[in-house]
Amino acid sequence: MAYVVDLRSDTVTKPTQAMKHAMVNSALGDDVYREDPTVNALESKLAALLGKQAALFVPSGTMANLIATMVHCNKRGSEAIVGNLSHIYKYEVGGAAHVAGVLLSTVANKPDGTFDLEELERRIRGDNIHEPITSMVAVENTHNVCGGKALPLKFLDDLGVVCKKYSLPLHMDGARLFNASEYLQVPARRVVRDCDSVSVCFSKGLSAPVGSALVGSCHFIEQARRVRKMLGGGMRQAGVLAGAALVALQEVVPQLALDHKRANILARTIEGMFLKSFSVDVENQHTNIVLVTISKDSSLTAEQVLQRLEQVCLAETQGDCKTTNDEGVIVKATEFDPKTIRFTLHREITDEDLWLAIMKITYVFKELHAAEK
Amino acid sequence: MAYVVDLRSDTVTKPTQAMKHAMVNSALGDDVYREDPTVNALESKLAALLGKQAALFVPSGTMANLIATMVHCNKRGSEAIVGNLSHIYKYEVGGAAHVAGVLLSTVANKPDGTFDLEELERRIRGDNIHEPITSMVAVENTHNVCGGKALPLKFLDDLGVVCKKYSLPLHMDGARLFNASEYLQVPARRVVRDCDSVSVCFSKGLSAPVGSALVGSCHFIEQARRVRKMLGGGMRQAGVLAGAALVALQEVVPQLALDHKRANILARTIEGMFLKSFSVDVENQHTNIVLVTISKDSSLTAEQVLQRLEQVCLAETQGDCKTTNDEGVIVKATEFDPKTIRFTLHREITDEDLWLAIMKITYVFKELHAAEK
Amino acid sequence: MAYVVDLRSDTVTKPTQAMKHAMVNSALGDDVYREDPTVNALESKLAALLGKQAALFVPSGTMANLIATMVHCNKRGSEAIVGNLSHIYKYEVGGAAHVAGVLLSTVANKPDGTFDLEELERRIRGDNIHEPITSMVAVENTHNVCGGKALPLKFLDDLGVVCKKYSLPLHMDGARLFNASEYLQVPARRVVRDCDSVSVCFSKGLSAPVGSALVGSCHFIEQARRVRKMLGGGMRQAGVLAGAALVALQEVVPQLALDHKRANILARTIEGMFLKSFSVDVENQHTNIVLVTISKDSSLTAEQVLQRLEQVCLAETQGDCKTTNDEGVIVKATEFDPKTIRFTLHREITDEDLWLAIMKITYVFKELHAAEK
Amino acid sequence: MAYVVDLRSDTVTKPTQAMKHAMVNSALGDDVYREDPTVNALESKLAALLGKQAALFVPSGTMANLIATMVHCNKRGSEAIVGNLSHIYKYEVGGAAHVAGVLLSTVANKPDGTFDLEELERRIRGDNIHEPITSMVAVENTHNVCGGKALPLKFLDDLGVVCKKYSLPLHMDGARLFNASEYLQVPARRVVRDCDSVSVCFSKGLSAPVGSALVGSCHFIEQARRVRKMLGGGMRQAGVLAGAALVALQEVVPQLALDHKRANILARTIEGMFLKSFSVDVENQHTNIVLVTISKDSSLTAEQVLQRLEQVCLAETQGDCKTTNDEGVIVKATEFDPKTIRFTLHREITDEDLWLAIMKITYVFKELHAAEK
Repeated sequence: MAYVVDLRSDTVTKPTQAMKHAMVNSALGDDVYREDPTVNALESKLAALLGKQAALFVPSGTMANLIATMVHCNKRGSEAIVGNLSHIYKYEVGGAAHVAGVLLSTVANKPDGTFDLEELERRIRGDNIHEPITSMVAVENTHNVCGGKALPLKFLDDLGVVCKKYSLPLHMDGARLFNASEYLQVPARRVVRDCDSVSVCFSKGLSAPVGSALVGSCHFIEQARRVRKMLGGGMRQAGVLAGAALVALQEVVPQLALDHKRANILARTIEGMFLKSFSVDVENQHTNIVLVTISKDSSLTAEQVLQRLEQVCLAETQGDCKTTNDEGVIVKATEFDPKTIRFTLHREITDEDLWLAIMKITYVFKELHAAEK
Repeated sequence: MAYVVDLRSDTVTKPTQAMKHAMVNSALGDDVYREDPTVNALESKLAALLGKQAALFVPSGTMANLIATMVHCNKRGSEAIVGNLSHIYKYEVGGAAHVAGVLLSTVANKPDGTFDLEELERRIRGDNIHEPITSMVAVENTHNVCGGKALPLKFLDDLGVVCKKYSLPLHMDGARLFNASEYLQVPARRVVRDCDSVSVCFSKGLSAPVGSALVGSCHFIEQARRVRKMLGGGMRQAGVLAGAALVALQEVVPQLALDHKRANILARTIEGMFLKSFSVDVENQHTNIVLVTISKDSSLTAEQVLQRLEQVCLAETQGDCKTTNDEGVIVKATEFDPKTIRFTLHREITDEDLWLAIMKITYVFKELHAAEK
Repeated sequence: MAYVVDLRSDTVTKPTQAMKHAMVNSALGDDVYREDPTVNALESKLAALLGKQAALFVPSGTMANLIATMVHCNKRGSEAIVGNLSHIYKYEVGGAAHVAGVLLSTVANKPDGTFDLEELERRIRGDNIHEPITSMVAVENTHNVCGGKALPLKFLDDLGVVCKKYSLPLHMDGARLFNASEYLQVPARRVVRDCDSVSVCFSKGLSAPVGSALVGSCHFIEQARRVRKMLGGGMRQAGVLAGAALVALQEVVPQLALDHKRANILARTIEGMFLKSFSVDVENQHTNIVLVTISKDSSLTAEQVLQRLEQVCLAETQGDCKTTNDEGVIVKATEFDPKTIRFTLHREITDEDLWLAIMKITYVFKELHAAEK
Repeated sequence: MAYVVDLRSDTVTKPTQAMKHAMVNSALGDDVYREDPTVNALESKLAALLGKQAALFVPSGTMANLIATMVHCNKRGSEAIVGNLSHIYKYEVGGAAHVAGVLLSTVANKPDGTFDLEELERRIRGDNIHEPITSMVAVENTHNVCGGKALPLKFLDDLGVVCKKYSLPLHMDGARLFNASEYLQVPARRVVRDCDSVSVCFSKGLSAPVGSALVGSCHFIEQARRVRKMLGGGMRQAGVLAGAALVALQEVVPQLALDHKRANILARTIEGMFLKSFSVDVENQHTNIVLVTISKDSSLTAEQVLQRLEQVCLAETQGDCKTTNDEGVIVKATEFDPKTIRFTLHREITDEDLWLAIMKITYVFKELHAAEK
């Protein structure tokens, strides 16, 4: 069987040995009664780490964002302003509208994941009876669809000023917050300083099997707890998951830099091929996500490229690009749009995996590029 | 007291004598039992006029659009694609999300009220489990915020093709549909040919006191009737309103051309002043709405201009721009955004009113423009 | 053609001459701008009449109740306690849940329209995180399904104490409030004394063509106005309807006693027939609604009786029960459940109509009763 | 420290050794990509066990019930008929209304957890435009608030006939389904034979740390999967939880009979004390839940009793009812209402624990009973 290098997402990461140990050795209790010591420890630790009062463990980042929306947008006819490339808008099944009853007002994300603050100010509604009530602003950091960009601190600081000016709660979808913190070389608490709430995901680059958390003030979390129950996110001996998440914070967060380094190597390699069909913005390669754009002039689609990456190449079986594996190498990646491929580095990708993936990717890119002419 | 020329909106129009006659002489019944002959007549007539199977009388255009959204978007996690300057998105208090539970996905309206159809196609979601289900596309015709533009038939035809390709219901917010029909010089049924549902308003330029209607297939209207009841839009002897609406179709629709002509005169007059501070796009002056844009270089705001238009000018009392009225003339208009003023012509504005308004507007514009230097 | 006596509902009433006069002679304006003097006058008058701060004109009683629910129940996961025979629960298409997102907790209505206050207290939820937040209690007065019963003042007073004890807003669905006030022989303001909000309907016994109102504090109505806009209940020259409603308050309210008297005559007549198949609770005949219960021992259904009442009887054409009309008399009534018929008296039913209806009803009841044996 | 016997709920159970082994040794994958082999195995196994086509793993029973409601009730203005003592109605924070937008119509639960089927039929709505659309019936089995009663098969069969007659989907909240199956001595698939969907909980008596499942047809589960994503119930390496759930099915289900036996002993012991203040319905002691009712004549409240059970008694420290533990025994239980205490037996309660609990309970009951006189 071919050797698989899975670069589809950092969500595919499996628990580490230390996480497994924690899963079966952490003290447990019924978290609905708030008696799970491991959940309580995780919530306390994360809140402290982010400089907020309290935290709440939830099954997913989608639920964390949904709860934040439901708590902040608590007036009938509320609206939240989010980026038009944000996860909340694009990939949460419209829950903000269908479940929370909140209108999403989208501002255009720039390539770096930020948006224009003057545009934001223009979008904030006044007290016209025809209009919804602007009740929340949300940013995503790092910004997935923008290629794992860490939002500049300057932008966050300026955004904080705008939100305070209009007394608007600021939520950060920090599914990959620690990647941002690593890139920016500042503590996570600095990154979220001006945010009223933050969602953090343990099951992406942090490698824990399941779980996210929502962080904010005590008052906010108290309401969030009730909403979590309503959505069915209350779990019993959740310490089995929280234990792994605690390990993730300690063990995996310090290693995120490695993922970033490897992503950078992959990006530079692709750039160094100087193929007109495929481009990478190496200068803005921040974290563990590498976006490859297929040239508009090319007739290739992301789908075709992915398909080829998942086939064993003749060259491999003939030994032309022979790797350690007799059966060839398969690289899995994700189609972001018809002309964009996403490679995501993560804890399970070793240096050797990276080397194998690069071999395969360069082979396929060259082959497809050559066929173009 | 000063003489008031109210150009804020065509919604301010009061019923005509013929409407009043109809209001007290139409046959009535209990419309919840579907026994009001006048409501039934209006619904039949409008459906026939628009070439659809059925219609439903409702208290407002906002309710008509909301019901259409609720009926078309009948799957959990639905999304409707609308223009980012549309009434549905901007001025219906977020009801699509809060009441209907539907995500609004906004495409950028061009200055002519249309949007890019390729952009539309890109916005239609596939069957990814992370994404909402695209369930409706809506256009607005004439497009209010774009200055009362009638959408080109070519655009509507092309849009119809796209919607059919994806089996997406197409709704037209036709609050001012008959203005579009008048401008395009084609029957209203041609304008809405490819639409699955249309909302039409009787209380704007058509001058009826209250009411709108939703038009579509029998199956669609049957569901709409139930949703109307749920929202509290079921009315009893609604024939008193429908009677006036019937008159509006017969009496006022043929006169809409006059509003358009007067709007054109106003627009051309303002343009002819060649003031850098104020501009009007006369070439694209379609119907009864005139948008005046204040130059970015100018320090003036729409609010200041409106305020001045509502004051009696010294010149007036001194006779400099003396009108028929000893006390001066007040012009009311609407602020669309901090740099845009909307004047709306309508049935109650006579040629003399127009002349008075023009006198006042030119005086104020010149005065403010002069003060700018 | 047969002569029709329509006792289905007081909603079938058509506007009086005075109402028609008001509809075409009242001062009008655009109520969305709050400039319709007649709407403003109606709202002021009704608020004063009920001893509350403010009122809001809406298209229907269903919308009035829905808005009250949306404003009072403003926390996520709210619950409203209502009678299990209330209009809100039975006949508003589930809008409280679907539109307002509010759980309805039903307490059993007693035959007099009240419910057990200890049961109510038991139903009020504590702060258990598993439970919704009890946010409103609603009563209906007069109580339609209970046969138009006026709730005893003692019950309302005790209920007021309970609601205040738990700081729970009390809403009265007063669609037929003035019938209750007439029966209880106290002013309407006394009836609603302890209510935080009241809905009143002008298009039932009061005979106005269209419209209801919601009454409460200024703060409550301010929020209600925004919700009305969201639901599409904002109307333009609504003064044409409000004018008729003003007349209804002045002209029709004082005549409600006549409807009650006639209902009483109808009830006593049916009782006086001593037919085991049909019974009426004359002792509790409060207002304009007469409920006839078909004996469980009888094989008759309400549907059969209604059908017979809508046929011209052979006896009529043969002159046996000949009336003023050569073609016979048809009586229309409503099936409340398979064994219950509702007759509703209203302004359009004259003494002669009543006499004709009684002739017909007694004839049909006897005939059907005889056929039973 | 006192020795604690925790009879509050079977949710407090912690994972067994075999579960822990499974948690760290099961094959894992990303379940959002449907690649977690352990989740897939659990879903297949459970579906087969219940004789249905498919299953879906979710974080909680509340979410399972909420998803079922959202999928079955897919028309605007839907209603679900549930028992007035059901978990869905009482303890799910009103999510059916707030999240799903579904009206709950409650039929009175009898002491055995069933309800009157004629009453059910009467509650099913027709096609009246004023009424919601009855779209689901739900039962709870075993029925928690009714004391862990297993619904009689005869009732379920008759209910199945009614639901089929009206084409109404039947959902079973089977949080404790396997307790019902054990009591009825028939396979679980027989119990759910006529149900269109079933929720099952692994973290109650089955002792798994976290998780429930929803079972139904392939078409139903496909829709449920999308709704789960929307609610934020999609988890990544959920195999760590599913592995424990698989063990629960194999290891713990066969032992449920022990919990039932122990509950029976507890119930019989309390009954055997012949204290008028405390009564237990031993004849109807079905499964692992024991409800103790405090006599209405008694001034005692459940709260007082619970408080006393959680104190170390003087007698204990004096050796009067000395147990294995020098510091005395504490028994924890749950207040169901002011006059009802629930004791729940579960896997962690050994025979010795039971004996200690009985010692303590009988001591406290006698003491309080004596103080009553």
